[in-house]
Amino acid sequence: MSRNQEPLLSNRPSSEQSNDNDLAEEDALLTGERVQRPSGNDKIKWREWILFGWAFAATAVVIVLAVLYQNQKTTQSHSSSTPSGKRNLIFMVSDGMGPTSLSMTRSFRQQQYGLPYGDILVLDDHLIGQSRTRSSSSLVTDSAAGATAFSCGKKSYNGAISILPDFTPCGTVLEAAKKEGYMTGLVVTTRITDATPACFASHVNLRQEEDLIADQLIGNHPLGHTVDLILGGGRCRFLPNTTSASCREDSKDLVEEAKQKGYTYIDNRKDFDSLQTGNGLKLPFLGLFADEDIPYEIDRRFEDDTYPALREMAETALKALSAATKNSDKGFFLMIEGSRIDHAGHGNDPAAQVHEVLSYDHAFQSVLSFIEKEQTPSLLVGTSDHETGGLSAARQLHETYPEYLWYPEVLANASHSAHWLAHAYRDHLAASTSRGDGDKKKLKHYLRKLLKEHMGVHDASSTELSTLIAQPEIASYVFADIISRRAQIGWSTHGHSAADVNIYASDSVSAKPLVGNHENTEVGKFLRDWLDVDVDAVTKELRRKSR
Amino acid sequence: MSRNQEPLLSNRPSSEQSNDNDLAEEDALLTGERVQRPSGNDKIKWREWILFGWAFAATAVVIVLAVLYQNQKTTQSHSSSTPSGKRNLIFMVSDGMGPTSLSMTRSFRQQQYGLPYGDILVLDDHLIGQSRTRSSSSLVTDSAAGATAFSCGKKSYNGAISILPDFTPCGTVLEAAKKEGYMTGLVVTTRITDATPACFASHVNLRQEEDLIADQLIGNHPLGHTVDLILGGGRCRFLPNTTSASCREDSKDLVEEAKQKGYTYIDNRKDFDSLQTGNGLKLPFLGLFADEDIPYEIDRRFEDDTYPALREMAETALKALSAATKNSDKGFFLMIEGSRIDHAGHGNDPAAQVHEVLSYDHAFQSVLSFIEKEQTPSLLVGTSDHETGGLSAARQLHETYPEYLWYPEVLANASHSAHWLAHAYRDHLAASTSRGDGDKKKLKHYLRKLLKEHMGVHDASSTELSTLIAQPEIASYVFADIISRRAQIGWSTHGHSAADVNIYASDSVSAKPLVGNHENTEVGKFLRDWLDVDVDAVTKELRRKSR
Repeated sequence: MSRNQEPLLSNRPSSEQSNDNDLAEEDALLTGERVQRPSGNDKIKWREWILFGWAFAATAVVIVLAVLYQNQKTTQSHSSSTPSGKRNLIFMVSDGMGPTSLSMTRSFRQQQYGLPYGDILVLDDHLIGQSRTRSSSSLVTDSAAGATAFSCGKKSYNGAISILPDFTPCGTVLEAAKKEGYMTGLVVTTRITDATPACFASHVNLRQEEDLIADQLIGNHPLGHTVDLILGGGRCRFLPNTTSASCREDSKDLVEEAKQKGYTYIDNRKDFDSLQTGNGLKLPFLGLFADEDIPYEIDRRFEDDTYPALREMAETALKALSAATKNSDKGFFLMIEGSRIDHAGHGNDPAAQVHEVLSYDHAFQSVLSFIEKEQTPSLLVGTSDHETGGLSAARQLHETYPEYLWYPEVLANASHSAHWLAHAYRDHLAASTSRGDGDKKKLKHYLRKLLKEHMGVHDASSTELSTLIAQPEIASYVFADIISRRAQIGWSTHGHSAADVNIYASDSVSAKPLVGNHENTEVGKFLRDWLDVDVDAVTKELRRKSR
Repeated sequence: MSRNQEPLLSNRPSSEQSNDNDLAEEDALLTGERVQRPSGNDKIKWREWILFGWAFAATAVVIVLAVLYQNQKTTQSHSSSTPSGKRNLIFMVSDGMGPTSLSMTRSFRQQQYGLPYGDILVLDDHLIGQSRTRSSSSLVTDSAAGATAFSCGKKSYNGAISILPDFTPCGTVLEAAKKEGYMTGLVVTTRITDATPACFASHVNLRQEEDLIADQLIGNHPLGHTVDLILGGGRCRFLPNTTSASCREDSKDLVEEAKQKGYTYIDNRKDFDSLQTGNGLKLPFLGLFADEDIPYEIDRRFEDDTYPALREMAETALKALSAATKNSDKGFFLMIEGSRIDHAGHGNDPAAQVHEVLSYDHAFQSVLSFIEKEQTPSLLVGTSDHETGGLSAARQLHETYPEYLWYPEVLANASHSAHWLAHAYRDHLAASTSRGDGDKKKLKHYLRKLLKEHMGVHDASSTELSTLIAQPEIASYVFADIISRRAQIGWSTHGHSAADVNIYASDSVSAKPLVGNHENTEVGKFLRDWLDVDVDAVTKELRRKSR
């Protein structure tokens, strides 16, 4: 046979001794075909069929492997790249929640519900890293500089609401998202004009300028309205100082203004319930359910017909934003804050704090459940702006060397916050004074009863009662200290501390750039990168317009 | 042409009208080959060459893709599987280091060396998760139960040295490693008989039984000697109570016993230096450089000719164990403890603590550098057993609302620990008393000078000085409080707290099972899994032999 007609298996030496039949048998062994002793044209036909079979099979395998390889590469590189196409980002802030808040709340929950030590928080299963929190002006940040790091991705001074140290505004991830067609929302349990929410959609030199922040939130802002959905407290900043419920310095009626700008406005639980958790909600939307803060969860649960829980507001917002972006090629950006973990820290009230953290944990679970069902790729990233209170789950009460323990059951016995007790006490004092009844013995009796019924404390000391009577103005701190001491929970300050705080995510692969220990500004940069929005362009526009 | 001779491109319809030349042109277009109008045998030759080329190229691509795909799969699955073959595991324990210790030390270092805020600790770059620390007996663990979780992978009661709640011994990862041919080592800055190192190679019901622990460490143990290399403090437990340097209750001379068992023994810096950081070290080896603790790093740096640093001991151990296992098919298991971070926490001394953490950070870097150069695959995992002191980087000193800050420069001004100052003061008092000189004014002058020269404190108050004079027995606590207050660093206890602690690793892929939030026992389980050693078999052997 001619050399041209040899079967062409690589590396098989051609030989003058080999005949076509031998080679055909060898090919058959390789291909699994039965050998027939063919003749003339049949031989050529066989060789070509075998070659074609080989080529075809190899090509098919190439295609399969290429697809597998590409899929795997995509999974791996997902980490640092943003997803393509429509997406939703939910950013949760656990204001003032340091690492010890988690340990304390976890053990409280296990104690409260008789769970084994392995039954952990939802958050625990989603830890991916820690954030370093210092601001440009101090090792200990406030919530304004903390939120500016998230919103603008830049360090600024304590008190700055998305304003840089040179007092120029910085564009925020929410503003950039809105500009590029995303829907946006803010959900909080404190005043919507407080530092954390304010930083996402307003720019003022000092966080105290809450009147101005309220103005900007409803669209009196160089960029127009940037927040499509607002749920939370802080109603008094939106009402004119001609009304008794107002805390504004001027007579602007921002509720009226918002309505004129097209906002739907509600201010009560009944209207909130009628939204059918989001389905009936028309954007833009302003829902303000408290004059200032929504009560601590530990107290709110007894006023559930007046105030929605964080979880409920989060679920409503998710449903509404998802529905509103259903036919859009852009998704939404939603910031949800467990605002009052911080307040419980400031108040040094561990019972209030564990309920706040649990409430945040429930909201976190709600977001996870939403993401699971949602068609649009969605990511949840959560972190704190700082630690509050210098909380320790251990407290030495005497000079003698302490035992290694603390008592979660003490927190479980409390049905109300120290703040709530102080309020009740103040009301009682006001009533007694108006009755002309200031008898100390009666007051001690009242306080003992108050502590027993609402804080589960049966052993109030004379010193504690005397302090409450002598300094009713600091009653909230005294009640908090009464419960902290008995639980052997320690605090070092009523302010903030410099502890690193935890970072959580629904998905550590998508949030890979935040795995490990990071500067808080890296969290902000991640948000904009993941959404793929141009924050710098917003900064330029703001500067041009604010000149 | 016959149907048999048609070029066999899939999906190309055969037609009686098509001729060979047309098909050859089509093939040429597909392959990029120039068309020649061939004749007879040439046509067949061309078809077969083209088919072969296609088959060959496709096969080559299959091989390349298959290799790439396999490599990628291996990289991904590396995460949860142990490596094959020889390996080294270095486990580092930062005893008592909670999350705030990192923030405090990071800012101290930046202040001390004028570094920008982005210049972080080595540890910061290797954070992978957090560990929950509770023991079987309390929400707040001690170091014994904490180390038992690491060594045995089981929860036990506070005080337990690798003994379970039913008072039976549990096999340790070090013992199992030794049994399976690994070399083993323990490096600490405290007594080698203290809870953390003890848990890896001894079993006693209560950590206080340090005489018995010393016995077991040198091989008076059901399993014989399990530790090949010991470097640290705690010499007094190895010397008979007939000598002045002893702290044993009996007259056993464990140094002599160890030598008889084949141990090389050294007890001073000069001999340590002569080891040429590991090269000249013959195993088994016992190096005890202090009667009890090696001094705090803040003080040790002035006694560098007497005591080695943690970093130096770590490097020596790594070099020695690497050399000793050079020709073995098993590597080594080494535990390195930054023992006295915990002591600085107990003492509530922030200046001592930042130097301890930095010293641990340097040792961590040394291990990373070793791993980089080492031929044998090696992994470093580091964590803490618990938090100590209830440390906060913020402290409210007055009733008025606190500023958000703390002062690292105060720590930078201190050249010695509170413990060292208290020692100096005690010596001074002893000398004054023997001189019959107890004048308070002179004493105040002395204390002011001591504080100024060694703690950088120029404004000691009368109350502080009076307390030091009235209660010299708690001088160490008073000195620590003097510096803590000025730095505005808070503490809630002289004991431990329940905060979650950080987990670090040289490589987050290999240590993937520890990424996120984990029970401390999971750390222990990871160590045994990664080494692939049978700890349960050791437990059985121990129980059988201890019956």
